[in-house]
Amino acid sequence: MGVVVRRIERAESYVIDGLAAAGVATVHEAQGRTGLLAHYMRPIFSGARIAGSAVTIAAPPGDNWMVHVAIEQLKDGDILVLAPTSPCVDGYFGDLLATSAMARGCRGLAIDAGVRDVHDLTQMGFPVWSKAVFAQGTVKNTLGSVNVPIVCAGAAIEAGDVIVADDDGVCVVRRADAPRVLAAAQAREADEAVKRERLARGESSLDIYDLRRRLDDQGLKYI
Amino acid sequence: MGVVVRRIERAESYVIDGLAAAGVATVHEAQGRTGLLAHYMRPIFSGARIAGSAVTIAAPPGDNWMVHVAIEQLKDGDILVLAPTSPCVDGYFGDLLATSAMARGCRGLAIDAGVRDVHDLTQMGFPVWSKAVFAQGTVKNTLGSVNVPIVCAGAAIEAGDVIVADDDGVCVVRRADAPRVLAAAQAREADEAVKRERLARGESSLDIYDLRRRLDDQGLKYI
Amino acid sequence: MGVVVRRIERAESYVIDGLAAAGVATVHEAQGRTGLLAHYMRPIFSGARIAGSAVTIAAPPGDNWMVHVAIEQLKDGDILVLAPTSPCVDGYFGDLLATSAMARGCRGLAIDAGVRDVHDLTQMGFPVWSKAVFAQGTVKNTLGSVNVPIVCAGAAIEAGDVIVADDDGVCVVRRADAPRVLAAAQAREADEAVKRERLARGESSLDIYDLRRRLDDQGLKYI
Amino acid sequence: MGVVVRRIERAESYVIDGLAAAGVATVHEAQGRTGLLAHYMRPIFSGARIAGSAVTIAAPPGDNWMVHVAIEQLKDGDILVLAPTSPCVDGYFGDLLATSAMARGCRGLAIDAGVRDVHDLTQMGFPVWSKAVFAQGTVKNTLGSVNVPIVCAGAAIEAGDVIVADDDGVCVVRRADAPRVLAAAQAREADEAVKRERLARGESSLDIYDLRRRLDDQGLKYI
Amino acid sequence: MGVVVRRIERAESYVIDGLAAAGVATVHEAQGRTGLLAHYMRPIFSGARIAGSAVTIAAPPGDNWMVHVAIEQLKDGDILVLAPTSPCVDGYFGDLLATSAMARGCRGLAIDAGVRDVHDLTQMGFPVWSKAVFAQGTVKNTLGSVNVPIVCAGAAIEAGDVIVADDDGVCVVRRADAPRVLAAAQAREADEAVKRERLARGESSLDIYDLRRRLDDQGLKYI
Amino acid sequence: MGVVVRRIERAESYVIDGLAAAGVATVHEAQGRTGLLAHYMRPIFSGARIAGSAVTIAAPPGDNWMVHVAIEQLKDGDILVLAPTSPCVDGYFGDLLATSAMARGCRGLAIDAGVRDVHDLTQMGFPVWSKAVFAQGTVKNTLGSVNVPIVCAGAAIEAGDVIVADDDGVCVVRRADAPRVLAAAQAREADEAVKRERLARGESSLDIYDLRRRLDDQGLKYI
Repeated sequence: MGVVVRRIERAESYVIDGLAAAGVATVHEAQGRTGLLAHYMRPIFSGARIAGSAVTIAAPPGDNWMVHVAIEQLKDGDILVLAPTSPCVDGYFGDLLATSAMARGCRGLAIDAGVRDVHDLTQMGFPVWSKAVFAQGTVKNTLGSVNVPIVCAGAAIEAGDVIVADDDGVCVVRRADAPRVLAAAQAREADEAVKRERLARGESSLDIYDLRRRLDDQGLKYI
Repeated sequence: MGVVVRRIERAESYVIDGLAAAGVATVHEAQGRTGLLAHYMRPIFSGARIAGSAVTIAAPPGDNWMVHVAIEQLKDGDILVLAPTSPCVDGYFGDLLATSAMARGCRGLAIDAGVRDVHDLTQMGFPVWSKAVFAQGTVKNTLGSVNVPIVCAGAAIEAGDVIVADDDGVCVVRRADAPRVLAAAQAREADEAVKRERLARGESSLDIYDLRRRLDDQGLKYI
Repeated sequence: MGVVVRRIERAESYVIDGLAAAGVATVHEAQGRTGLLAHYMRPIFSGARIAGSAVTIAAPPGDNWMVHVAIEQLKDGDILVLAPTSPCVDGYFGDLLATSAMARGCRGLAIDAGVRDVHDLTQMGFPVWSKAVFAQGTVKNTLGSVNVPIVCAGAAIEAGDVIVADDDGVCVVRRADAPRVLAAAQAREADEAVKRERLARGESSLDIYDLRRRLDDQGLKYI
Repeated sequence: MGVVVRRIERAESYVIDGLAAAGVATVHEAQGRTGLLAHYMRPIFSGARIAGSAVTIAAPPGDNWMVHVAIEQLKDGDILVLAPTSPCVDGYFGDLLATSAMARGCRGLAIDAGVRDVHDLTQMGFPVWSKAVFAQGTVKNTLGSVNVPIVCAGAAIEAGDVIVADDDGVCVVRRADAPRVLAAAQAREADEAVKRERLARGESSLDIYDLRRRLDDQGLKYI
Repeated sequence: MGVVVRRIERAESYVIDGLAAAGVATVHEAQGRTGLLAHYMRPIFSGARIAGSAVTIAAPPGDNWMVHVAIEQLKDGDILVLAPTSPCVDGYFGDLLATSAMARGCRGLAIDAGVRDVHDLTQMGFPVWSKAVFAQGTVKNTLGSVNVPIVCAGAAIEAGDVIVADDDGVCVVRRADAPRVLAAAQAREADEAVKRERLARGESSLDIYDLRRRLDDQGLKYI
Repeated sequence: MGVVVRRIERAESYVIDGLAAAGVATVHEAQGRTGLLAHYMRPIFSGARIAGSAVTIAAPPGDNWMVHVAIEQLKDGDILVLAPTSPCVDGYFGDLLATSAMARGCRGLAIDAGVRDVHDLTQMGFPVWSKAVFAQGTVKNTLGSVNVPIVCAGAAIEAGDVIVADDDGVCVVRRADAPRVLAAAQAREADEAVKRERLARGESSLDIYDLRRRLDDQGLKYI
């Protein structure tokens, strides 16, 4: 605790933007069904789909001092990711901090705790994925750390990892794996487009995925 | 496990459509305040109000193989109803399966687990009531069953039962009871229309429902 | 149990309306980060921001008899606040009761239990903050009380206290403290307006709030 | 609601006692991994292992009137099984009711709600599996039903079904299936005894269950 | 925040001890089924039954500074009651603080948060009712208050109120009501002793409580 | 997925045993209040206090195939640590697997899922910390991995890290940090022994920890 890492590596922006376009469900499949944050991480408004480099925050319960410190470390295209050091639903973040973060090009926030001023944040178009919406205010008395490895909503995240978030939730992609995951995600999308068309025409997925023989092998009985 | 019942009885469509028009709150009252699925079953978008015949799925945790099997059993006007065999929030269902289900006339899904691609499902107008939104993918390795009796979100459901779902949640009506429940629901609606008007004019429900005497009998004290 | 207090004191309406304008997050800060109801109290639709005088209801689980009694006690500008006497998610309140409450000038409902007919309530513009949306109906067999002190979603509330509610949740302000809290809230808003502008221009909150020295004192290390 | 079924069929007592001896984990495996009540059903003391015929109760939230009615229907060797008609954690049952139930030969209680007087119940040796321990008292104002089909903690249960309960939880066996399930459970136990011995000697379960080839087929990599 | 009330009124010790003897379930019934803390407040070991005067603590999340302050205010026979100012499960209290509290005659702790060193506390015979067992440590950086009114686990508690706790949970009795509640509890116990004996002999509670006529009136059908 | 790392580094056994002696609360304090698994990880019986090297398992929901694989990788003094790849409470582990694990010197299991046969496990003295006790059986159809990095109950864990577990919960210590943490833990214990004695004599912790001046600085008011 009490450490701020100032220099972090980030993925290339075409990779980040490509992952945003693919979306959470596709990206997590493309990396072997891994990387999702817990399902309780819900967006404060629907329709946002973003990706960016993680600036991580480990914050004590009920204390948002480190958010102020972290915002100064933001670069254009970054996403704040906050994990409290023990479970907490307080509203660490509201419209003032969002104003400050947006002034530095921040694309959004994923927080395993609470957020407030959600009406203003929605008006401002600043997307947040959180465990709770809660007006409960915080103090600025105890240090945490910025850009250290954290576990946020069940996922291990390092500063500079790529965060992808949309209406399905939040996913983390290791920075080093990001180009490979993007390629796999795009291949998956192409494949799905073909299948979607066949399914829309009424073909059964049992035929498209060639599942009938295995059903038979395992003994599925039609009666 | 490992059984697919191909032929199921369904209620008549005028009954089904009548129940949809009455809505969940009225229908469950009309059958004696029974039939509701648990309150955690929430719609992925607001404003949908549907009814249809249940095609039931018992699926292992994290395995959506049986969804593919069930879709082939759908007839126009059906609703998929999935219960995992042990608690699970994985995203069993997304836009590809919805495309396939819609091609067969499916009206929606009630799932005591997770759903994903909710932005796409909303765009497609395919309504889902679920326990969770979660991108977590599933496998196709273990058999379950289709059109067997299940318990979904605390309610016992048989294939062919009528499912009614709207912003208030999800309700099941036994197929054989459906005509009788419809009649009771419509009588209730007529009665409520009259009461609504009186209440809007400022009459007290204590008078409309004749509650004052019983309050008095039980000893309510105004001070 | 079994008591209805008919005469309650209310705050002045300019105070109530001023608190509504300030909103939940600001109001709870203005009274020392106190008064919030639990974070699970969520609005049935977004965008409402109200304040009013609490008409309190202590109701048995699954029994909404006292809601009918309480509605008769409503005055223009009041808010119903219901706490079940033990945990319950049943739908105590729907469109008929809302029709009746609106006819008496009621501004909304905060209920540590369930609500139903949420689609209709949304159309009517009657805002509700609740623990659950659940169609489960209730009976009228057991007495509770109206306008007695209650604990609702973790907050102690007395009849006539000011309830403030918006997308961030619900807050209670003691009636006697309301003028003072309003003044503090308005001062806070003025101060925030200045800070918002500076933050929007890119100044760091570490400078605006003069936090750097204390960070240094506590030993924060930049690496 | 408002029905008491007086005559129910019960399984033979050697079957019931055999299932008790096998225990919950074995019994549920013997019927194809089905029949378990939700994992939140926990015993008030450890070490009890019982089986008996279900006398079912559907009770309104916060109202234990039907428990009094049900106790009169108990026969020697029965188990009370209570499901509230909507979620509730009130203490429906305590030492007085247990005294009455024991006087009729009742072996225990499974309740998807709360229980109280747990210290006395433990002293009396009356086992209870419940969702909660909660002293909250109940009233006797609203009818429910006895010996009708219920869904208790996610499992469909009919009067006369066999309930098996131990430190692992609670399981229901359909009355008609009970003899067959007992035979399967005993076969399973015999098989496990052999395996336990081999495992205790240090053999790998990968060999005992012949799992290595399938691991290889699926591509498990040792590195 | 930031206030310590040094002088509080306490109930007489024969009243406190009488309430302990009656136990939680009886006491809460004797005051009209009110006063219980939430059911999630569980004892760290079974078998304790205590009563004492509440010394209340409002503590910030993750900060136990005020516990140290409160212990100094303890008198022989008191019980510490802690409510965090927002939800928190950190371990505010362990064996060192218990040692200190016991040295001042403290009878136990009720905490709507976490506790740790539970093995040592059990050995020491210091009973705790808590929301969680969690080793997570706390800091001493932010003020709270001692002996102010709090809401703990859903119950409003003032310093000097009588806290009763046993295996069924925790109950608060207003100081001024305590003698009256004690009398009612003792009357109830006497009444229950008679009923227990009759129930043990096999009489039905339907006869003892004279419930049959009302069942009939409401239309219960035996079939 | 589908990887088994056969060779892992372990801490020295005197370090491991020293950490066990210090216990969870002390160890997590000694490493700066970090390393705890979530508070819902509870022991199946009280009184166990163990430490060992982590053999990690990433397992699909409802599939315990990898547990069989992991047991073969156990060395004397190891602890199994299982994280499902999505949330699951099934009973992955029971007495047969415990028999096998004990034959290889395994000291216990920490599992962010369910366990069963808890009565037998208690008799065998095999300690388990789990999220749930649930008899629900699992299948052996889908690969996971062994000795890869996992996130278990909110904590990042690598194979060979030291796991410490007792009645307060479960803590992980990085293998490389273990000697340093042990030294800090032992220093802390020595310090606490002195303080415990002073506290037992009735000294106030406000004096022992020299807290009065800072209380004064922050403005605590005694009234």
